[in-house]
Order: sequence, then structure tokens, then C-alpha cells
Amino acid sequence: MTVLAPLASSAGGAPIAHLVLALAVILAAAKLGGDVAVRLKQPAVLGELVAGVVLANLDLVGVTWFRSLTGDLTLDVLAQLGVLILLFEVGLESTVRDMMKVGVTATLVAVLGVITPFALGWGVGALLLPGHSAYAHAFLGATLTATSVGITARVLKDLGKAQLPEARVILGAAVIDDVLGLVILAVVAGVIESAETGAALSVAATGVVVAKAALFLFGALAIGVVLSPRLFAAAARLRGRGVLLATALIACFVLASLAAAIGLAAIVGAYAAGLILEDVHWQEFARRGEQRLEDLVRPIAEFLVPVFFVLMGMRVELRAFAHSGIAGLVLLLTLAAIAGKQACALGALGGRLDRLSIGIGMIPRGEVGLIFASIGMTLTLHGEQIVDVGIYSAVVIMVIVTTLVTPPALAWSLARGERRAASRAAGPAVRNGAPGSAGSGERTAR
Amino acid sequence: MTVLAPLASSAGGAPIAHLVLALAVILAAAKLGGDVAVRLKQPAVLGELVAGVVLANLDLVGVTWFRSLTGDLTLDVLAQLGVLILLFEVGLESTVRDMMKVGVTATLVAVLGVITPFALGWGVGALLLPGHSAYAHAFLGATLTATSVGITARVLKDLGKAQLPEARVILGAAVIDDVLGLVILAVVAGVIESAETGAALSVAATGVVVAKAALFLFGALAIGVVLSPRLFAAAARLRGRGVLLATALIACFVLASLAAAIGLAAIVGAYAAGLILEDVHWQEFARRGEQRLEDLVRPIAEFLVPVFFVLMGMRVELRAFAHSGIAGLVLLLTLAAIAGKQACALGALGGRLDRLSIGIGMIPRGEVGLIFASIGMTLTLHGEQIVDVGIYSAVVIMVIVTTLVTPPALAWSLARGERRAASRAAGPAVRNGAPGSAGSGERTAR
Repeated sequence: MTVLAPLASSAGGAPIAHLVLALAVILAAAKLGGDVAVRLKQPAVLGELVAGVVLANLDLVGVTWFRSLTGDLTLDVLAQLGVLILLFEVGLESTVRDMMKVGVTATLVAVLGVITPFALGWGVGALLLPGHSAYAHAFLGATLTATSVGITARVLKDLGKAQLPEARVILGAAVIDDVLGLVILAVVAGVIESAETGAALSVAATGVVVAKAALFLFGALAIGVVLSPRLFAAAARLRGRGVLLATALIACFVLASLAAAIGLAAIVGAYAAGLILEDVHWQEFARRGEQRLEDLVRPIAEFLVPVFFVLMGMRVELRAFAHSGIAGLVLLLTLAAIAGKQACALGALGGRLDRLSIGIGMIPRGEVGLIFASIGMTLTLHGEQIVDVGIYSAVVIMVIVTTLVTPPALAWSLARGERRAASRAAGPAVRNGAPGSAGSGERTAR
Repeated sequence: MTVLAPLASSAGGAPIAHLVLALAVILAAAKLGGDVAVRLKQPAVLGELVAGVVLANLDLVGVTWFRSLTGDLTLDVLAQLGVLILLFEVGLESTVRDMMKVGVTATLVAVLGVITPFALGWGVGALLLPGHSAYAHAFLGATLTATSVGITARVLKDLGKAQLPEARVILGAAVIDDVLGLVILAVVAGVIESAETGAALSVAATGVVVAKAALFLFGALAIGVVLSPRLFAAAARLRGRGVLLATALIACFVLASLAAAIGLAAIVGAYAAGLILEDVHWQEFARRGEQRLEDLVRPIAEFLVPVFFVLMGMRVELRAFAHSGIAGLVLLLTLAAIAGKQACALGALGGRLDRLSIGIGMIPRGEVGLIFASIGMTLTLHGEQIVDVGIYSAVVIMVIVTTLVTPPALAWSLARGERRAASRAAGPAVRNGAPGSAGSGERTAR
């Protein structure tokens, strides 16, 4: 007690000893949950979410310590850093040029895949939550919009199908609908804020939000693409260790706080930073024998990202299902989430694309939906919480179920699509002399 | 503003956007400061400290934003996590077996190198701070005890001398005096707490603190050496990514919170965890092609450790030097720090050891001294702050100066020692047929 107490109070009250114990427990839960998920052929992230749900709901049998962690300020900050790093890492996997290549098809798929679940989610809210305002219904719709880039990419990678043209459309569209979802979130949150303060929300004000978002994204991407090589060239002249990682983190953090400053979610900035940075920028560092940036960011993500997912799971209160119509809400919300994304198939122009697989590949919701829901928990309108703990829990269960159904469904539909392509390729025209793989091969070349 | 505000308040008031902006600034300052230090042939950590001192003291010319960061709770938590990771990383560089090998010589060097600066520091306090209590003087002595393992190792590595027998004695002794320093800190802090609560501190109570520290260290090391291989063998059966890093972090965090729970500083536990973990434990992971644990921990350290050092530098208030006798305190404290460690030479038994180099190699103070000082800032006795901002600033300047003088002094004395060894080896007996390097060569073999 002699040193612990002062060490804790030197942090102005943050008990570092308690924090690291909580981190140890969270990491252990994440890895054990992840292990079970992987053995059940599910993405590890699902196990992390479920581990969090299980631990926090031990309060039903009197174990309340885990539930108390959901109120820990410093854990929450680490979780938020984790999700920034995750979006940055996902952004690093593609470049601005990749984004422009997938182009029209991905954009069309994304737009249809945002509008339909938004409308369906709104409808589910209006149907099952008549006591809540239309704002709450719209917010519920917004939580259904964004496909999880991380989960989709992980599933396609696990199946060994990341190079299929369908995979590129899915990933491109997932990227775009993340952004569209964030715009919707900004608009809906703006509407709610205006209503709360009594100001009427004009079309002009909505336009300002959309314009700011578009300006930030295109502005950041355009300026970033020009500035980024110069930044890394300047950084490469610095001596000392860790310069590459520090420079990349600085880019991520600066864009995240810029995004927040103009009213977007900080994750949009982190994602944009990841898109802007490209391998060629740190060739100079690679020449010196430094590790690749991806390898440097990964350990930080491995440390902080599970904190986000376990904590998100911990926010689910299973006792909420005992009350009112939450079970029905979960069911209809999940159906709306799954059905809504099947509209994506209509956007998949181009005869050879496996539309069913695209629709299924867009199903998983994830971090963005969870973030939306947690933001909704902080919004109030005339004393009504826009997202209460019951709705939040329903959203988390919806995320878990959509993540759960995707891997087996996608594996089945891709295999079916390949059989069809093979029979088509064996028919009228066999190009490239490689029957069965020609259809996908020509589009796979980078 | 629509999304930022709720996102911020979802963290219970922690503005993540402000935090990441601060992190970006701190990382940039650390890397720029490190670059200047390395160009001046100094360790990068020195540049990070000085960068922090410079930024925060811009409040002398009216720029107060940087100074305000020193009161940021979440930054402080990240800094404390950083110093835990640093001590864990340093612990990973040696094993429990290495520690036992350096044995008697290193222990003797360490004990002398702790007692003398402690006494000298106490004396400087009594001389220059007559208005403070004897407790404050003893605390000042305690801040002088611990050689910086990190800085010493870094300097020896930079000079390419990490394999000399002198280097191993210095590092072994630096490790041991860290622990001795922590025991002294625990005792002094215990004495101050007893005095504050009015309880008389008995010899028995002091004995309890020492016994707890010894028990924890030897207990943790003994149990850890037995348990650690089993822990990693069990972890190796888990599927999913990031298991090795998570397991290592769990070991670090659990021991850190255990150490804190029994009244030691959390860093002692983190360091013990690093000592216990050995490469052989994760052979199974290496066989699967995973990165080495050191490579996984390094990026986390590169992210969080500079936060600690820049923040430590930021806590220096240069305006304190305008008051009272702080300049004199800095001067005498630094002299006590340098002179005190020269007693180490007396402990360097064994005719061929270069005693001057050992004494010089022990000079740099670092993270432990800074941690002691920051703990002292939180202790009060009858309303008197044990370490006030003036004393704290003096300690930081002492750390900077001792770090500054070591590299050139050590380079000079090692070259001198080698010339002497060469002339000795060329004299009476030339073993191994390699004159000039025989003296060090035979002890270097591992």
C-alpha cells in the first residue's frame, strides 16, 4: 500500500494497477473467445464480442466486477484508440487508387446497400417502437447501413477468396457505405440536435453537413495524396528508432482530430489516413531494413482492438430481453439487416458477377454499427434517450447474428457461383486456355 | 460539431479528438527531439525529455497549451502504460539465469552504487533544503539510487560494447540497483506515510516492507519460471491471431497489478515479467512463423514510451530556477549523482575489470528516478509536499545531465581501458594467440 496509493493518485485518481488488471482480463477473454470462434469456423471478432456479452452478464448471477468495467473512463479511451487504429489498419489495406478503380459498380452497390437497410430499419423502429420519436426510428435505420469492412475482409481472406472480382466489389462497396453511413449518422445526429435545441433543421443545414463530409473526404484524400510522400521523405531524414511508425500514427491522429473538428466521427479521419498512406512512401525506411508499416501497426491493433470489441460486448444487457418487445426487435432488426443488403445485388452490373455472393458478402455489420449505437446512447431529445439500453442490446445482437451467418452462407454461395462460372466457361467461349478460372482470372490481375 | 460532441461524451467526458491531437504533437516532438539528440551523438531519450521541457516552458512566452497537457488524465494513463511496457521490454532483454550469472560482482557494485548516492543525496538535501523535513531529504537521496537500465544499455549498444565483461557487470548491477532503489522507495514512502498518519514507524514495519519486496521478487521469479512455459504451451493451443503478444501482455499486466497490490511499484512487476519470459517459451509460435515477441512489443513501446518521456520533460518548470537555491540544488545533486556511482568501482572485484568504466557506466539516471520524483510529488507530510515542483525540476535536470555526460565519458574510458588491456596482454602472457583482444575475448564468450 505504500507505493501503490501514491502511484495511483499521481494519475489524478486513475488506478493504473486496476486498469492493467482489467486489460489482462479483457485480453484473456478476447483470446479465449476468439479461439472458440475460430474452432467453430467463425471470425475471431465474433468470439471477442460474445466473450464480452458473457462476462458482463455474469451480473445476472451476482458477479458485477465485469459490468463495472463498462463505466471505466480509461478503458473506454483505450477502446476508442483501438477502433481508430483498426480503421487506420483497414485503410492501409487499400489505396485511394484502388478505391477509384472499383468505381461505378461498387458505388452503386454501396448506395443501394445503404438506402434499403436505412428504410427497413426505420420501418422496423416505427412498427415496434411506437412510443419513441421518429428520430429514434431514423437512428435505428442508420445503425443498419454500414457493412463491416474489417469483418468482410477477414471472412473473404479466411475463405481464400480475397482476389475474386466479387470480393473487390464487396470490399469497395463496404468502404463506400462506411462513408455513406457516417454521412447519414452526421445528418441524423444533426437533425436530433437541432430538434433538441428547438432550432428548425433546414434543408440548408442538412446540406452543410453533407457538404462538410464530402469536402473533408475529398479534400483530405486530395491534399493527403500530395502531402504524404513529402511528409515521409522528410521523416526519412530523421534519425532515431520508431520514426516510420510515429509518422504514420501522427498522420492518423491528425486526420482523426481534423474529422472530429469539422463534425465527422474521428474514425473517418483515421480511415482516410490509412487510404492515403501507401507502401511507396516508406521505401526509404524499407531500404534501411525497417519493418513494414503494417507489421508495426498490427501489434498495436492486437493490443487495443480487442479492448474495443470485448467492451462493446460488455455493454449488452441480456436482462433487457426480459422486458417489452426487445426479442421481437432483435428478430425484425436482424431480418431487415440481412434483407436490406440483398438490394446490393441489383447494383452489381456486369454479367459475370455473382450477385448472390455480393448480397451475402455485404451482410456483416460491425464496428461502425456499434459505434453508431453507442453514439445514440449519448443523444437525448426532450429527455428521451435516442438509443436506450434495450435498443443498444438489440443492435449488438443484430451485429453478432449478421456476423455469424455470413461465413457459412458466403462459402456456400461462392462455391455455387464458381460451379456456374465453370459450366459457363466450358460452354461458348474458353479464353486464356484456363477453363473454369478464366472468368475470374481476367479480372483478378492487378 | 454534430458527431464530435456525442462521441466525446460517450467516453464519459474524455475528448478523444483532443487526446489524439495531443498524442500527435507529443510523438512529433519526441521524434524531432530524438533526431537532434542522435545527431549530437546522444541517446534519443534525451531529446525526448528536452523536447518536453522546451514545449511546456513555452508558457513563459504565453503559449500555455503544452503545459495544460501535463494535467491530462488520459495522457498520464498512456504514459504510465508506456513506462510499464518499457520496463517489460528491458526485462525481456535478460533472463533470470543471466541475472544469477553476473552474481556477486554485480550485486556488490549495485549495493555500493545505491548506498553512496542515497547518502550523498540525503546530505545535499540536508545542506540546501534546511526548511524541508528529513523525510524530504531521504526522498531526494532515493531519487539518486537507480541507474537507468534502458539508457545504459542503449549507450553501450550504440558504442558497440555491449559484449564486454564490464558491460555485463554494469547491466547486471543496473538491474539490481533498480530493485534496491524500489525497495528504498517503498521504505521511505512507508516511513512518510506512517509519520503522516501519526503512527510511529517501527523497525518491524520497515522489515515488513523489505520482506514483502523480497518475497514478491523471489516468489514471482521462482513461480514465474515454473509457470511461464506451461502458460505459453497452453496459449500455443489457442487459435486466432495475436495470441503470443496477448499472452505476454497478460503476464506483464498481472504481475504489475500483483506488485502494486502488495505495495510495490507496478513497474517492478512488469520488469519481473520481462525477466521471467524467455525465447524458448514461444518456440511453438516461432515454428508457426509468428514474429518474435520483442518485435511485437517494440511497436507498442515506440508508441507509448515517448509519451512518458515527453510528459516527464513537460513537468519541468524552468521558472522554478528563478526562485531560491534551485540552481545550486541542481549542481550539487548532479555532482552527488555522478560521484555517488564512482563507489561502484570498489565493488568491481576481479583484476582485469576496467573499474573506471564501470563507475562511469553506472552514472545515467533515468525513468526510475523520474518515477520516484513524480511519486514524491504526490506525497505530503503535515501539508508539506515531499517533492515540490522546484525539487522535481532539479531531479529532471539531474537526469538530463547524467544522461548527457555518460556517452562521451564512457567512450573515452572504454578506449583507455582497451589500450591498457592491450598493453597488459602483450606483456607477460598472450593467450589464445589474439593479442589485444584476449583480455576481453575470453570473458565475452556466452
